[in-house]
Amino acid sequence: MQLIHGVQVKKLRLIPDDRGFLMECLRSDWPEFTKFGQAYVTACYPGVIKAWHYHKVQWDHFVCIYGMAKVALYDPREDSPTRGMVNVFHIGLLNPCLIKIPPRVYHGFTSEGGQLALILNIPTELYNYEEPDEYRVPYNDPSIPFSWEVKHG
Amino acid sequence: MQLIHGVQVKKLRLIPDDRGFLMECLRSDWPEFTKFGQAYVTACYPGVIKAWHYHKVQWDHFVCIYGMAKVALYDPREDSPTRGMVNVFHIGLLNPCLIKIPPRVYHGFTSEGGQLALILNIPTELYNYEEPDEYRVPYNDPSIPFSWEVKHG
Repeated sequence: MQLIHGVQVKKLRLIPDDRGFLMECLRSDWPEFTKFGQAYVTACYPGVIKAWHYHKVQWDHFVCIYGMAKVALYDPREDSPTRGMVNVFHIGLLNPCLIKIPPRVYHGFTSEGGQLALILNIPTELYNYEEPDEYRVPYNDPSIPFSWEVKHG
Repeated sequence: MQLIHGVQVKKLRLIPDDRGFLMECLRSDWPEFTKFGQAYVTACYPGVIKAWHYHKVQWDHFVCIYGMAKVALYDPREDSPTRGMVNVFHIGLLNPCLIKIPPRVYHGFTSEGGQLALILNIPTELYNYEEPDEYRVPYNDPSIPFSWEVKHG
């Protein structure tokens, strides 16, 4: 799959043992790291779609640390070589990945497999409660060529 | 409870809604923040005790982001005003907290309530694979005045 310009994907190493598991999510010596703004966790119940939004300044670093998530990206940037492109990822404990999402790229996610999905995000910027760098459109906005429905087959 | 010298505890705001929840875990503008080394997740199966260890340089920032965890600390530092003290915390979705753990303070955890516990740690230092800043003693070491058993009553 060709990645949207600026998007980075890093396969993570999930190390299971008889006590549980351990997974490094983001290290400051990885090329994907720019700077640390904050870390937060967002949980998505089964069947819920958290989409779409984008940031003007912030880069996101998504890791699904419980369950599975479908993460979709859409590139509306006029100056981008991948303008109009959609990327879809299925990440989580079955496919541990870090996804770095550039500013001005729409993104959203839903849980998969009928269970809770937990996403750890480590954005480059602090969330500003008064003036959030967060711009939203509906999950089914017709300007974005993507459907969240599962395609049976 | 008197805290071990250097330990910090911050109650976190877990915001549930009909889609799931959101919880800020560590922000770079909080007084608890020093610097970002990396972020990792460690999972603990029911009945497993992950203890004891300490670091010589690293500060840990623990948040239990799924399930519940009993986190215990023990202060063996000769130069500490709280030398010999034990702190116990029950953190997780029922009690969202950030616990900042100083170097040279023993720490460990176990899951509670018979379910998986996921701990997000955001230490100040990178994990060094060749020379880990990690020193271990057995979970039941007699030099530490703490028992991991549940006290019925």
